[in-house]
Amino acid sequence: MPLRMFSHRIETAMSAAMSLTQKGTPPELLTGAVSYAAAPGGARIRPTILLSVAMACGDDRPAVSDAAAAALEIIHCASLVHDDMPCFDDADVRRGKPTVHVAYSEPLALLTGDSLIVLAFDLLSRQDPDRALPLIRHLATRTGTPFGICAGQGWESESSINLSAYHRAKTGALFIAATQMGAIAAGQDPEPWEELGARIGEAFQVADDLRDALYDEAELGKPVGQDEIHNRPNAVTELGVDGAVTRLKDILGGAIASIPSCPGEAALAQLVQATAKKLIPEGKVNRVPGE
Amino acid sequence: MPLRMFSHRIETAMSAAMSLTQKGTPPELLTGAVSYAAAPGGARIRPTILLSVAMACGDDRPAVSDAAAAALEIIHCASLVHDDMPCFDDADVRRGKPTVHVAYSEPLALLTGDSLIVLAFDLLSRQDPDRALPLIRHLATRTGTPFGICAGQGWESESSINLSAYHRAKTGALFIAATQMGAIAAGQDPEPWEELGARIGEAFQVADDLRDALYDEAELGKPVGQDEIHNRPNAVTELGVDGAVTRLKDILGGAIASIPSCPGEAALAQLVQATAKKLIPEGKVNRVPGE
Repeated sequence: MPLRMFSHRIETAMSAAMSLTQKGTPPELLTGAVSYAAAPGGARIRPTILLSVAMACGDDRPAVSDAAAAALEIIHCASLVHDDMPCFDDADVRRGKPTVHVAYSEPLALLTGDSLIVLAFDLLSRQDPDRALPLIRHLATRTGTPFGICAGQGWESESSINLSAYHRAKTGALFIAATQMGAIAAGQDPEPWEELGARIGEAFQVADDLRDALYDEAELGKPVGQDEIHNRPNAVTELGVDGAVTRLKDILGGAIASIPSCPGEAALAQLVQATAKKLIPEGKVNRVPGE
Repeated sequence: MPLRMFSHRIETAMSAAMSLTQKGTPPELLTGAVSYAAAPGGARIRPTILLSVAMACGDDRPAVSDAAAAALEIIHCASLVHDDMPCFDDADVRRGKPTVHVAYSEPLALLTGDSLIVLAFDLLSRQDPDRALPLIRHLATRTGTPFGICAGQGWESESSINLSAYHRAKTGALFIAATQMGAIAAGQDPEPWEELGARIGEAFQVADDLRDALYDEAELGKPVGQDEIHNRPNAVTELGVDGAVTRLKDILGGAIASIPSCPGEAALAQLVQATAKKLIPEGKVNRVPGE
């Protein structure tokens, strides 16, 4: 099952979401920056996981799943815009293109992130009430503080970091949102899906650490060595490349084992496996976990 | 009817909202900055208007009204934190205290604004579904783009400004949210309440222009002359002080005339009148509109 099988659904849902920002006579630069920040180019991994879980749970209301997938990706795009700004990573390039504050301006980048955050909740508020409210609540929990990506970034300002809370909030939060929102969108209880999201989040953190250590800027489409520059914890520094690859393999095994019993359980396990292949920097290490 | 009659309800609801950010082991500086940004000190005018409209409509579920009032004020506080940042107003002082990026840091100010936006929607998602969803939708519309305060700020980056869209989004949006969310919180149709919010917004814009022109920083608790520095449209520049005061009087007359028929119509008219008195810089001009 290819990782990008949901690409069409995701891009259609993203376009529908963007059209909400284009009503009336909007300020053109801001509207342009919002679309620029949300444009295809990223892997759309979080919404793909969300739709995969929704499918595994029966996906009985695909329109709700699509909106949930777009809302989650929009929050991720917002976080990239703000994280790239001069007061954080001060990154000039993202997904091979100039970052929003470089292409537009710093004020517009700040407003773009804010507008995207609001848009995500706006979009969810238009769905069936019985699913919209838990979707909004779960997305808010995994976006803000203390359990969301805002808290994750916030930990980097603390003199003493709670590493487990930091990783779970910084990288894990939106993957937990992905699995739980997928379940909610399909009318299922989100609680049994938290562990799968958390483990996928851990796997991505380790994979990101590997890429940061092994790739150069041209290969990655964004600046590298950021963890070292910003003195952030990194699995490669801690375990070495081989140790980090082994850790990744273990985490993915745990992820597959954690999948709750559901109609699409086997297909979902296959998708996690396929995702794993994409996580290892190709040609840089010898083993692919899960193979 | 005193303008601050709802003070206790608002501060209690704000404290309850803040407690959502203090669960588990949160990053302390970010949690501190969020509470700092939302602390009492401002006039709490938007939530006061929201509760006034809810009361005028019967306020049959006070807990919903209180949450709506807090969510609206939280969005206002978020906008102040981001607007004060170096890439916008670069303000050092707000409500007589150092701004968030000065008291904490620029990264924490950015995250504080983001966290507050998310918190507002989180809070609303915990209310009765039949009212929570329209509250979320209206708040999102008046916060994001193209009809919200993000769009209002966004207009300032355009080379050619649509003045009516600019003012309505920049200052009007959260007042429209106030009247409409007050109606929704009390189970009423929000549509007839849009005009009152829009007119109160216009009145505040003119009053703000008067204060910006007539006060000094010590009196105002924030930097003055910002419109001139940032080349923003201003009613005093356009009409002179007396002309601006006359405009304010006309707008408030229109606001009172626009109040929809409801059980608390008379009391609400009285409150708009009382609010008007607060809008004129005391001792700086000779007339108080509506007297």
